[in-house]
Amino acid sequence: MRSLQEAVRPTTIIEAPRLSKRLGADVVIASETFQLTGSFKFRAAYNVAINVPHPRIIAASSGNFGQALAYACQLTGKRCTVVMPHNSAAVKVAAVRDYGATVDLINTHEISRSARVQQLARESGEAYIASAYDDPLVIAGNSSLGDELLTLGRGFDRIVVPVGGGGLLGGILQSFARAGNKTAIVGAEPALANDAARSIAQGELIVNEHEPQTIADGARTVSLGHHNWAIIRDHVSGILEVPEEQIREGVRQLFTLANLKVEPTGALTIGALLAQPEQFRGKAICCVVSGGNVDPGVYRECLID
Amino acid sequence: MRSLQEAVRPTTIIEAPRLSKRLGADVVIASETFQLTGSFKFRAAYNVAINVPHPRIIAASSGNFGQALAYACQLTGKRCTVVMPHNSAAVKVAAVRDYGATVDLINTHEISRSARVQQLARESGEAYIASAYDDPLVIAGNSSLGDELLTLGRGFDRIVVPVGGGGLLGGILQSFARAGNKTAIVGAEPALANDAARSIAQGELIVNEHEPQTIADGARTVSLGHHNWAIIRDHVSGILEVPEEQIREGVRQLFTLANLKVEPTGALTIGALLAQPEQFRGKAICCVVSGGNVDPGVYRECLID
Repeated sequence: MRSLQEAVRPTTIIEAPRLSKRLGADVVIASETFQLTGSFKFRAAYNVAINVPHPRIIAASSGNFGQALAYACQLTGKRCTVVMPHNSAAVKVAAVRDYGATVDLINTHEISRSARVQQLARESGEAYIASAYDDPLVIAGNSSLGDELLTLGRGFDRIVVPVGGGGLLGGILQSFARAGNKTAIVGAEPALANDAARSIAQGELIVNEHEPQTIADGARTVSLGHHNWAIIRDHVSGILEVPEEQIREGVRQLFTLANLKVEPTGALTIGALLAQPEQFRGKAICCVVSGGNVDPGVYRECLID
Repeated sequence: MRSLQEAVRPTTIIEAPRLSKRLGADVVIASETFQLTGSFKFRAAYNVAINVPHPRIIAASSGNFGQALAYACQLTGKRCTVVMPHNSAAVKVAAVRDYGATVDLINTHEISRSARVQQLARESGEAYIASAYDDPLVIAGNSSLGDELLTLGRGFDRIVVPVGGGGLLGGILQSFARAGNKTAIVGAEPALANDAARSIAQGELIVNEHEPQTIADGARTVSLGHHNWAIIRDHVSGILEVPEEQIREGVRQLFTLANLKVEPTGALTIGALLAQPEQFRGKAICCVVSGGNVDPGVYRECLID
């Protein structure tokens, strides 16, 4: 079986002189849009698949983690079931099936996703239940992106990372802490889903009352994971809140000035530079773009100025 | 001054398992969308800029070559004037200016592009007039992409390359011929602009009567360049004609299944696989994607199924 380092596609480094000029900063993009399955989640999913002994893995995900886990299990010869709401977009269900997993469609008014996952696990008895973000194996998998950024050997003034459940930010912080590297690493989260910013401000893990309805659907999490929170609390240099309009503008600018197709969650980092330009002016910034999977309809709407 | 090999960004190799599954072939994409200035044209433009002694370069281009030449001149300390029709899209004029060139806007009803270029050259007396495709320096610059494909060391059954003026196809053929490599290399051109296919069929260079109005605007050329024709005639394994609908579908499939934003001309190669799937089934195919610069409005329309 291939190791994590052998299996993942190295992140795609894109220098974007026109985008840099527009943003008034020296911006380098680390894009996970061409990672296997189209987002950084493959790093986490593959690390889970190769490290748990179970022949079957179950997860609830209507997004990138489901696709990533399906493909990771296909590559490692494990069975995989992904629980999705029955009203999920057809393209998302098709993507998970394309990667070889069983899709278990549920009516979330009748049973919660986590209850259904537990039910399936009890029926099978030999399955690992994978969390999309709150699992040390997930964080360790994502830390491989941090390791790649370290080996670039570039002196970034700041690295900006999208935040949803905090798995990617936690992984990159873990990697840099492990290496003793003190580069400032900040999170970028939707202002509509600012639980990470509030958690840092209050010094304790804050939970949103409802799933926030931001366009950045990868950040529609009610809180950071507990494992991630412990790392983020100790190592992050700040969390920036990005209004919806700057998320959309980030998608547009990456399209126009860097030829990069990104999902709204992936545009959070450019959105952070647009929302708070004074924090970045003249600095060398690495913007992590977490993924590229987005419905054509949502994308078309983002392109309208 | 940096050499061509030092200055260009290596092409981006993207393996796309979902796209391969859909197309029934083992497809690897060599994408020039993240090349400096967003298309392969930078290879040609930079090679011109470093090889001519003139302190100033003039060209007529409303497309990718104008941006590429502007940036190549900026990097090499040369002055650059790009002649563009006065009704060019504002974003294209802005892009050329962003890269530091002087834009000379003309009314094409009053003076032709080439006449204006000649006029400017006479006024200046020390300028090189650059062709976007019909120039040995351009072909040699583009051959650097062929050299990169050779160093991949992968056994492609076929390499598919977009064809407009033939500069890119000529360059890649030149590179493979130079190396004595016999891999089949085919061109993909719009059916609406099939002068290359007709030229091959008739054994002589055929010229379109009008500029063909294909959505693939990089292929709106009236004929192959003479230098390119000589190479293509001797070495190409075939020219495939791609209907407009398959060009659009190529843009959509690259969006959906490979997270790649491409311009219609860049989608010609995937369009060729969609148009003639029986030629490619089960084979290992390298599809060259020539560039990614496309107006948001055109792109949004392509995404509609």
